[in-house]
Amino acid sequence: MNADSLAAHLAADRARVDACLARLFETRQPPAPRLEAAMRHGLLVGGKRLRPLLVYLAGRALGASDEALDAPAAAIELIHAYSLVHDDLPAMDDDDLRRGQPTVHRAFDEATAILAGDALQTLAFEVLARAAHPRLPALMLTLATAAGRDGMVGGQALDLAAVGGHPDVEALATMHGHKTGALIRAAVRMGALTAVAEHDPRVEALDRYAAALGLAFQIHDDVLDVTGDTRTLGKTSGADAARDKPTYPALLGLEGARGKASELTDEALLALAPLGEAGKPLAQLARYMIERDH
Amino acid sequence: MNADSLAAHLAADRARVDACLARLFETRQPPAPRLEAAMRHGLLVGGKRLRPLLVYLAGRALGASDEALDAPAAAIELIHAYSLVHDDLPAMDDDDLRRGQPTVHRAFDEATAILAGDALQTLAFEVLARAAHPRLPALMLTLATAAGRDGMVGGQALDLAAVGGHPDVEALATMHGHKTGALIRAAVRMGALTAVAEHDPRVEALDRYAAALGLAFQIHDDVLDVTGDTRTLGKTSGADAARDKPTYPALLGLEGARGKASELTDEALLALAPLGEAGKPLAQLARYMIERDH
Repeated sequence: MNADSLAAHLAADRARVDACLARLFETRQPPAPRLEAAMRHGLLVGGKRLRPLLVYLAGRALGASDEALDAPAAAIELIHAYSLVHDDLPAMDDDDLRRGQPTVHRAFDEATAILAGDALQTLAFEVLARAAHPRLPALMLTLATAAGRDGMVGGQALDLAAVGGHPDVEALATMHGHKTGALIRAAVRMGALTAVAEHDPRVEALDRYAAALGLAFQIHDDVLDVTGDTRTLGKTSGADAARDKPTYPALLGLEGARGKASELTDEALLALAPLGEAGKPLAQLARYMIERDH
Repeated sequence: MNADSLAAHLAADRARVDACLARLFETRQPPAPRLEAAMRHGLLVGGKRLRPLLVYLAGRALGASDEALDAPAAAIELIHAYSLVHDDLPAMDDDDLRRGQPTVHRAFDEATAILAGDALQTLAFEVLARAAHPRLPALMLTLATAAGRDGMVGGQALDLAAVGGHPDVEALATMHGHKTGALIRAAVRMGALTAVAEHDPRVEALDRYAAALGLAFQIHDDVLDVTGDTRTLGKTSGADAARDKPTYPALLGLEGARGKASELTDEALLALAPLGEAGKPLAQLARYMIERDH
């Protein structure tokens, strides 16, 4: 697969998960329509759908069907979307723009944004439960531990504590490993577990891939915050520095950060060796992610 | 069982679920200790533990073991606790006191309270997943649909929309049916499903019990808000009227509301008929709940 066919593939998967997510809001009589509109706003406006893409690519690499991957792909995007809605709240990052659109609390109100985030999280578990995969316990445990206090939310709490502080590279990696890394690893693991049982050695290989990829992704995000412009990013560029948030470019310099991201990408590619040919799309995705400009 | 032995029984079950919840915070190295402290504060300070009690009583009535009921009992209390933490936030009810203690955002800060609520919700699903009950899909679906947009969170959104408005008795019942009723029904259903499969007719009988009980409970809560004092309630009495929140006593008068609660309690008791002797503790709980003064 060349870069163009990868891009076409990713676009098709994005359309697939977008359709799954849109269906969650169709043919219903919602008890609270305004809540529902806020949930849609938080979920359906734009988004790279990186985590669902990882579910599809990792799952297919081990032989899962697209149909079986739909629920975990939708579930992980619901968790990601809820976290963005809450992250943008005035008491948190206080952001007005997300993906080039008003954030949920700006488009609606703060109370509705809190509830919409809450309901998006619940819906993630509902979607997963409804699919009733034979390995539901493992899938659910993967999602819950990655999303909660030992994963994403724990990382957000570390991030709050770090603002204005001066963490070193290791502390920064711990924070990101929780805040964004945990969910990226969960995406890959859920894709894998949809196809094979936990003890399959390829699950472990894919986890090494995902751990390296997640950190590379975050460092690249930090680099883009310095080098990108607001229009391309769809969010305010330079926002991290303005908030005195610790970043990789601040600690390693811009070239140092770029070098670290590229090193981690190599690590991710190496981890794919046990998958042979089947790992190629995942390898291309890793390269694609580190070359993106938004 | 007489009233005294019921009280002793309930105290034992409360201690049982409290121990399960406390264990979730033991022998861990939490990545974000302040987040963890806020979660404990929201979860462990006081509380009637009504929903876990319903899980235990309903489950035992159909033959489940205490051990099998621990996870659903803990999971439902985690959902309840998360909803209280978010409900108390400045953008929502803006409460300073809960169960006689400072609310989480007062004891910590607003961002930490948002995250603590988020992580308590996730932990509910984690606890349920970890127990890996053979009927996990049904248990998880019961909890998620009751907690999310079609249940509790939907009801909270309806409640927000109702402040300052003038809903009739039917609209009020719809709001409460979602906001508090859904989780009470889920507690009873999860207890039941831990013991027997969905098609067992006693599951349906218990659901009728829970639906009537949930509404009776809410009406009694509204009555207590008028007649109780702040010290006994552990929260500010008269708070509903001060906020111009619609209540049953406001719509039906104090005696009318009391009559309605008592009528619903009778309905709950009648629904228990198919359970015979095994339903007695649930019947006693229904009477106990409507006689409580806090």
